[in-house]
Amino acid sequence: MALRLALVQMSVGINKMDNIAHACKLIREAANKGAQLVALPECFNSPYGTKYFKEYSEPIPGPTTMSLAQVAKDCKVYVVGGSIPESDDGHLYNTCSVFAPNGEIIAKYRKMHLFDIDVPGKIRFQESEVLKAGNRFATFNAGPCTIGIGICYDIRFAELAQIYAQKGCHLLLYPGAFNMTTGPLHWELLQRARALDNQLYVAAISPARDENASYIAWGHTTAVGPWGDVLVTTDHEETILYTDIETEKLKQVRENIPLNNQRRLNVYTRTKPVQSQNPTTSLKNNDMSGYQIDVNQHVD
Amino acid sequence: MALRLALVQMSVGINKMDNIAHACKLIREAANKGAQLVALPECFNSPYGTKYFKEYSEPIPGPTTMSLAQVAKDCKVYVVGGSIPESDDGHLYNTCSVFAPNGEIIAKYRKMHLFDIDVPGKIRFQESEVLKAGNRFATFNAGPCTIGIGICYDIRFAELAQIYAQKGCHLLLYPGAFNMTTGPLHWELLQRARALDNQLYVAAISPARDENASYIAWGHTTAVGPWGDVLVTTDHEETILYTDIETEKLKQVRENIPLNNQRRLNVYTRTKPVQSQNPTTSLKNNDMSGYQIDVNQHVD
Repeated sequence: MALRLALVQMSVGINKMDNIAHACKLIREAANKGAQLVALPECFNSPYGTKYFKEYSEPIPGPTTMSLAQVAKDCKVYVVGGSIPESDDGHLYNTCSVFAPNGEIIAKYRKMHLFDIDVPGKIRFQESEVLKAGNRFATFNAGPCTIGIGICYDIRFAELAQIYAQKGCHLLLYPGAFNMTTGPLHWELLQRARALDNQLYVAAISPARDENASYIAWGHTTAVGPWGDVLVTTDHEETILYTDIETEKLKQVRENIPLNNQRRLNVYTRTKPVQSQNPTTSLKNNDMSGYQIDVNQHVD
Repeated sequence: MALRLALVQMSVGINKMDNIAHACKLIREAANKGAQLVALPECFNSPYGTKYFKEYSEPIPGPTTMSLAQVAKDCKVYVVGGSIPESDDGHLYNTCSVFAPNGEIIAKYRKMHLFDIDVPGKIRFQESEVLKAGNRFATFNAGPCTIGIGICYDIRFAELAQIYAQKGCHLLLYPGAFNMTTGPLHWELLQRARALDNQLYVAAISPARDENASYIAWGHTTAVGPWGDVLVTTDHEETILYTDIETEKLKQVRENIPLNNQRRLNVYTRTKPVQSQNPTTSLKNNDMSGYQIDVNQHVD
């Protein structure tokens, strides 16, 4: 059983209402071509940049998400609404909303790892100057697939993908806007790494490139299979990519190379014994502990 | 401060004594060219294959490691002795020994994730039919560098590299022999992924390809920098590659993209509250727990 995915590498301008209308038009186009899930890029209703977020922000539900809800319902498709600057309780977030084919919001994800980097002479960007980070993972089901959401810089953190894999995700979607410095080096590599390590599908959806924008997106929207192979990719112009997510393929790769049965969890988690008055509790904690640990090593 | 590394992609034949002598000759050559650490490939004294391991195995110390100790001492270099089939207490291991410039063994690593894969029509291999897995990480210091060891299939497990990064490693060395199925797809990708995600150096050292062997190695010995960039690589013939490990470069990459300060450890570790009669213990446990966890998700 497959899920037909459309990845919308859309052009984003300075007019918010135009951006929303343009996104809805492209979603309709993708649905007409048979997509069952349509994914938009990060920050699709606003130029990307800390100076824009406040002006373009809105609550959820709000004008942008109500438009996406309507088009999801009209076209009977899942819509992964890239991201928008969300305002809530005096804070701003970089937020992705997911819509079911009935128009309901079934998941909401706020970017968990804010994009704060400083490569001297190349790029400096500090999302944390204006945004607040989210604290929750978000998964949803669409047809045969369980899908996890991250946004852009989140993809650098292997932990997020590992947690989603543990939750049973078949596909991770990262709306994202890498730049001309990190894009060529890291955009595809990170997707392939997450896919291969966790033996699942990964797709990252970028806005089209605007050479006149203050932040120039790398483009190169891509989907990668559970074998770490690029399924579909593109350059930086506006386009829609299509690909099928086949859960059967995950099963096959995981049978061929059974990483999940081969992890040495008891070795990774060799913590020092915990002092506890309740041995049962202590044992239980060890079971849950991951690998934030250190072990004194000896030559065997 | 830099450490000059030599990666020896050596040809391995069926005569064990010849293999050892050949390894020693290549180590001398690398040392003469200025290498401070010389690394050999996986299974350098034996053809790679479950049918060979018992016959070629030996204890440590034994003829192979005593030869390496001598050449390390003669040349005053660190030697990472790829791996050999080690016999100990009735079991066989795939083991890497590390020698200081004074000839002492300063680290020993037994392959922790055995190579058991089955890609129908392509490759089936089951190391666990004859080998026992190791249970310990191994790090050592050489000049300015802390170095962690994995062997071949270990590189597929992100956890191993993450743990080594937590231990302060600047460089991970993976003696390995990928094959003609997984080599083209995964060999370089896995090295680049480990390097980029953990912002450290990674090198993987393969035997040269022998088209007549029962297991045909991919070759392509490679070193990757902390930016995920390939520093040096080759095809499949016998050769020695040289590269410098600069700990300063790690520092710079980690300042540019400060992943280690940006991890959301408290979010990854949001475990369900633990029942405990001792609140202090409970808190402590939470601190140590990693991300083997599940959290019920809600829409914010």
